[in-house]
Amino acid sequence: MQSQTTTLDPFRPNKLVTLLTDFGLSEPYVGIMKGVILSRCPAARCIDLTHDVPPYQTGLAGFWLARSWRYFPSGTLHLAVVDPGVGTERAMIVLEADGNAFVAPDNGLLEPVFHSATQARWRVFHIDDVRHVAPAGISNTFHGRDIFAPLVAEMIEGRISIPALGQPKPSPAAHPPSMPNEGCIIGIDHFGNLISDIPATSLERLIEPVVLFRGQTIPVQQSYGYAPAGSLIGLVNSWGTVEIALAQGNAGRTLQAKIGESLAIADSASSTG
Amino acid sequence: MQSQTTTLDPFRPNKLVTLLTDFGLSEPYVGIMKGVILSRCPAARCIDLTHDVPPYQTGLAGFWLARSWRYFPSGTLHLAVVDPGVGTERAMIVLEADGNAFVAPDNGLLEPVFHSATQARWRVFHIDDVRHVAPAGISNTFHGRDIFAPLVAEMIEGRISIPALGQPKPSPAAHPPSMPNEGCIIGIDHFGNLISDIPATSLERLIEPVVLFRGQTIPVQQSYGYAPAGSLIGLVNSWGTVEIALAQGNAGRTLQAKIGESLAIADSASSTG
Amino acid sequence: MQSQTTTLDPFRPNKLVTLLTDFGLSEPYVGIMKGVILSRCPAARCIDLTHDVPPYQTGLAGFWLARSWRYFPSGTLHLAVVDPGVGTERAMIVLEADGNAFVAPDNGLLEPVFHSATQARWRVFHIDDVRHVAPAGISNTFHGRDIFAPLVAEMIEGRISIPALGQPKPSPAAHPPSMPNEGCIIGIDHFGNLISDIPATSLERLIEPVVLFRGQTIPVQQSYGYAPAGSLIGLVNSWGTVEIALAQGNAGRTLQAKIGESLAIADSASSTG
Repeated sequence: MQSQTTTLDPFRPNKLVTLLTDFGLSEPYVGIMKGVILSRCPAARCIDLTHDVPPYQTGLAGFWLARSWRYFPSGTLHLAVVDPGVGTERAMIVLEADGNAFVAPDNGLLEPVFHSATQARWRVFHIDDVRHVAPAGISNTFHGRDIFAPLVAEMIEGRISIPALGQPKPSPAAHPPSMPNEGCIIGIDHFGNLISDIPATSLERLIEPVVLFRGQTIPVQQSYGYAPAGSLIGLVNSWGTVEIALAQGNAGRTLQAKIGESLAIADSASSTG
Repeated sequence: MQSQTTTLDPFRPNKLVTLLTDFGLSEPYVGIMKGVILSRCPAARCIDLTHDVPPYQTGLAGFWLARSWRYFPSGTLHLAVVDPGVGTERAMIVLEADGNAFVAPDNGLLEPVFHSATQARWRVFHIDDVRHVAPAGISNTFHGRDIFAPLVAEMIEGRISIPALGQPKPSPAAHPPSMPNEGCIIGIDHFGNLISDIPATSLERLIEPVVLFRGQTIPVQQSYGYAPAGSLIGLVNSWGTVEIALAQGNAGRTLQAKIGESLAIADSASSTG
Repeated sequence: MQSQTTTLDPFRPNKLVTLLTDFGLSEPYVGIMKGVILSRCPAARCIDLTHDVPPYQTGLAGFWLARSWRYFPSGTLHLAVVDPGVGTERAMIVLEADGNAFVAPDNGLLEPVFHSATQARWRVFHIDDVRHVAPAGISNTFHGRDIFAPLVAEMIEGRISIPALGQPKPSPAAHPPSMPNEGCIIGIDHFGNLISDIPATSLERLIEPVVLFRGQTIPVQQSYGYAPAGSLIGLVNSWGTVEIALAQGNAGRTLQAKIGESLAIADSASSTG
């Protein structure tokens, strides 16, 4: 199914670019990408989302980007480079949605963004030919600097129209879906909270929702602040998914939790009886 | 005692916002706050102070903010979100001092800033009602995004006057004070230096000042550069407090030092005799 | 030998400043330097290269700066503060090259930048007297804030001309050179790749190049993407040097590699036979 371009809210660049990568900040990779962007578009303004996505975790990158983009003004270009296939012939895509543009390798990263956009107000295109933005030698290992950064600079400077980038595509490449009541830890945040991919809406059908994790039954509460220090609680986080927290503590460290561990939600009203 | 508004240097926003949080940079929390600010105030410029304050260490956050704000131009808004009570009914305040504005939870964080401001040139107000800046659903866990960021954007855009935010207040909530010759490690910096809260002025009464730490007597010297490699030295750091350093090394790692350990200063001229 | 100023491409500041330090981001040091710069030059725009250079590693700082500056527009000022001698009488220099300016302690850091600049299009000057930019008390430990930041702000604001800073100098202070076929690990990046200082051009004379590391012979390949997961490969990285990577893995962690370990390149076509 292709997008209905009659209702499309077109990308009118506001010169803001968000950056989300797994490059880390210990080397100047991200700074160099900003230099490339500013060399071609001096009025560009770059905002870091995060560069500490664990290497190659395209699913987590997509999770965060889908929960971030609506907080930026319309006309923002979101560049995400988490790219296990760099240097091979993997595809690159651009997604235009709700007045914004998203550029990334087509490895599943943009799927959650695609689902978070308003229905029928998007277009997806392959990025077929980048030689006009990167005429010099392209490295095999740093497409962020040599392809993506010059490309987005040309886009926000208004010198490339999105449909000119390549062939249209019905949707971004997909990640495998998860069951509504089951999921896994997709991230452990700075506070040690275990962030799952179970949508908060899955709790709505339950009378006394609990989180099941490693055989433990953890009550779902409304906020960190009301729980006694040291107790495990389930929460709806501000991203609209279920998470496990240790009140006034660090659940990730205390439980030695790992990204990828499974968890589930259930109804304690029905489980005890 | 209330401020004397006749001498007040009022906050005239220059569109600069500094951000200081315990959110870390591994997730896009800080980037999202910037998106919210830029959505309401497109000319805003955000400068990160640090986002690596250890979780909930409001004292350390206040220590750094009190030593940072004077290096920014007058008219800067400083937003600090280190907030163990998020989601509960803890108060929020705004402090107007020396032409700048400071916004934070009222948990002691702003007390050192308050004491670093020029006498009688400040005002403090409760932030009583935020529904006009955050009319939609407010999350219980991310007030940085849902309350503080929209509030400061409206303030620097000039759409909210500080006295309209709420009731005046004599001063920010306090942290417990420390003795002038005794203190504790309140931070370990990137180089492993042990930063204490003992003010440098406490050294002035001493003839041959030394630092006492774990039973060791450590001489106070003028700079890292003159000490032999591997020796422990006491120093006045550029923040105006006493610190312990390991010349050409990392005191924090070598001593396995921890935030909160106590230390003291004394006079070796009188102690040996 | 002095530069031929007839061919000099002079520094015309574009108000961009890149920052490269070993200060880390856990304290507000870098943010404060930005505050100082913005206080004197409100239109300045600061871009972080990295602040996670291991403490005092001037060689690694120079390596990255030499590989970063060409990606920024001409007229950029690059400030690098990795400074084991802070507080002592070590010299400071400014290098003007290809329309850009570089400011740093004269401890070898700028040598690789100097060699990466176009021949005979540079000038080097001592920074002899900074009292006019830093009239107040200069701390012994934070010259980044008290000397370098105000100095570069005055330079990009156009209030200081480079030759007025001090005496001319034939070249920056040098680091010891390495052999073309031998080198050492000068950095381990976020992905665990072991970055060496062996230039990629050294591979050109070899028929079947291999990397020798800890007695292992590692084949040189074209890109990460084509190697089987878990295999060690040698690569030319996007910085023009040889590196060792673990396909889909983390070479640094798996091998417990350390900065400073030696490695070499050789020709397997001649070694077997």
